[in-house]
Amino acid sequence: MVSNRFRKKKKSIPIQQYVEGIKSGDRMTLAKAITLIESNHPDHFQAGQQLLKEILPLTGKSMRIGITGVPGAGKSTFIERFGTDLCQMGKKVAVLAIDPSSTISQGSILGDKTRMAQLSREENAFIRPSPSGGTLGGVHRKTRETILLCEAAGYDMILVETVGVGQSEVVVRTMVDMFLMLTITGAGDDLQGMKKGMMELVDAIIVTKADGDNKEKAIKTRNEYNQILRLLKAATEGWQTKAVACSSITGEGISDVWELILDFFNSTKKSGVFYARRKKQTTDWMLTSIRERLEQTFFQNEQIKKRLPVVQRNVETGRLPVSIAVENLLADFFNNQYKE
Amino acid sequence: MVSNRFRKKKKSIPIQQYVEGIKSGDRMTLAKAITLIESNHPDHFQAGQQLLKEILPLTGKSMRIGITGVPGAGKSTFIERFGTDLCQMGKKVAVLAIDPSSTISQGSILGDKTRMAQLSREENAFIRPSPSGGTLGGVHRKTRETILLCEAAGYDMILVETVGVGQSEVVVRTMVDMFLMLTITGAGDDLQGMKKGMMELVDAIIVTKADGDNKEKAIKTRNEYNQILRLLKAATEGWQTKAVACSSITGEGISDVWELILDFFNSTKKSGVFYARRKKQTTDWMLTSIRERLEQTFFQNEQIKKRLPVVQRNVETGRLPVSIAVENLLADFFNNQYKE
Repeated sequence: MVSNRFRKKKKSIPIQQYVEGIKSGDRMTLAKAITLIESNHPDHFQAGQQLLKEILPLTGKSMRIGITGVPGAGKSTFIERFGTDLCQMGKKVAVLAIDPSSTISQGSILGDKTRMAQLSREENAFIRPSPSGGTLGGVHRKTRETILLCEAAGYDMILVETVGVGQSEVVVRTMVDMFLMLTITGAGDDLQGMKKGMMELVDAIIVTKADGDNKEKAIKTRNEYNQILRLLKAATEGWQTKAVACSSITGEGISDVWELILDFFNSTKKSGVFYARRKKQTTDWMLTSIRERLEQTFFQNEQIKKRLPVVQRNVETGRLPVSIAVENLLADFFNNQYKE
Repeated sequence: MVSNRFRKKKKSIPIQQYVEGIKSGDRMTLAKAITLIESNHPDHFQAGQQLLKEILPLTGKSMRIGITGVPGAGKSTFIERFGTDLCQMGKKVAVLAIDPSSTISQGSILGDKTRMAQLSREENAFIRPSPSGGTLGGVHRKTRETILLCEAAGYDMILVETVGVGQSEVVVRTMVDMFLMLTITGAGDDLQGMKKGMMELVDAIIVTKADGDNKEKAIKTRNEYNQILRLLKAATEGWQTKAVACSSITGEGISDVWELILDFFNSTKKSGVFYARRKKQTTDWMLTSIRERLEQTFFQNEQIKKRLPVVQRNVETGRLPVSIAVENLLADFFNNQYKE
């Protein structure tokens, strides 16, 4: 145990060194700071939280943009093109990828940088996968804190990429200002193929691959989306969700995407919706974390782990009313926490 | 205190008397049993739970059907007509109404029976408002338990009515087998006027007032719904959500609604989706109740009530990271529970 402790101590960097490195925009220090935040080691947790407290005043100034789309929708190619354009406009661009279905070792969607070769060579770009840590709750804590670290390091465009499957979009929606869905046109009835329910979660739909033979179809798909979007509930108050078409190869339409983003931020800042959402996201994050930690404490309680399956069976087979089951379990839990 | 206790004792009915009354289908006893379940008095809670335990083996045999629609969609008139038809077919029909936005004294949506005069005269009908008790959590516990009591009393059609505003539909969806949305045709672009997001929550859309001058428009609206429904995620696995049109005045189309309901139950029972949903609803109800009770215990803890506003301000103004805030509050809570 002593030698282990010694090895750990030898490698650890003082918090102040992290803070200075981040402030100066050093990408290596930023990467190490994110690793610290992502660590599940109790000592690292304390250090990570201390670091966050230090850099907190430097955060909040970026455009936080979520990007989703099913595999094959052209996310990598789009981010490569769009991110590089932004860098050349003088922006600092951080790309974070959430993929709860895989860990780094199983091959994260951004496991290496070859996927965005050109963007990763840009001095003003920072690309980082965000491993799931097993739970969606873990994802959102760590990704949110990674956003804060990137902001403290001066990144003014944070692109949070997620695969358009499962529940990760709902979580990403709670941590970004604007949410984009990428999609392609296909054969036959295009709208049938989209991820159901996604349209009401996003602020813009980007039909990619609008080039060559596909251009006309992409424009048609864009128009169909714009028609149906008018019938659906918008994700952001006072903003009409729009569809645009673009090509990451020819670059046509990429400036339309940028105009749309600027328009969104101008309009929501003017109406106050931007600030209200940011504040609400922080409060909700806190309340959600409290709920998650309470549940975690309950369901990992040894006594509960033993009793729950028995009680559940009695409830499912109609031998025990739900309310009685719940009151018994709660009493068990608090008695047990009391004793521990 | 003694006299109070005496008054209460004098009025209380032995549990066995409730059980016998319910088993024999006595509506007065059923009404009193629901009042007992709805009571927030601790003694009543124990008695109510005991009663539920007794009648539990008699439950589960009904068709549980949710009915929603904005005010003016013709819910009362439809339930009056449909319910009366069902009674004349020999069914026993219970109508429960959830309205979290009002309590009985403020005028519940089913505060009196004049709204469904004809149905309330049927021997096989039972009409009952379900007061909110202040919280949505309260609604769903009490309404779920009221469903069980009605089933024990032999009602084989349970119609749970809710106003199509707010969050109550999401809760109703978790306690019924099939969910219907009532809507009317209006002037201009009809689909714009519908409650957004509702279409993916229901199993059928019923366009009412399909009579006289309005009939043609209602048919058109029904067809438009059927077109758009094909693009949306269905609420029930293996079931394509459908729209039908009917008139509660002429009765035209009411039998189509009944056919659709029978079709839904046959198809979901055959596929097993019906049984899987019932089982999942019970387990989810238990887990949701546990979460609610944990949260309730946390947020009503005296120490937390004092500290939370301070902590929240520090988090919102960026003085304290969310994770530190949460860990501090959790520690406070368990220390405090320990002392109490």
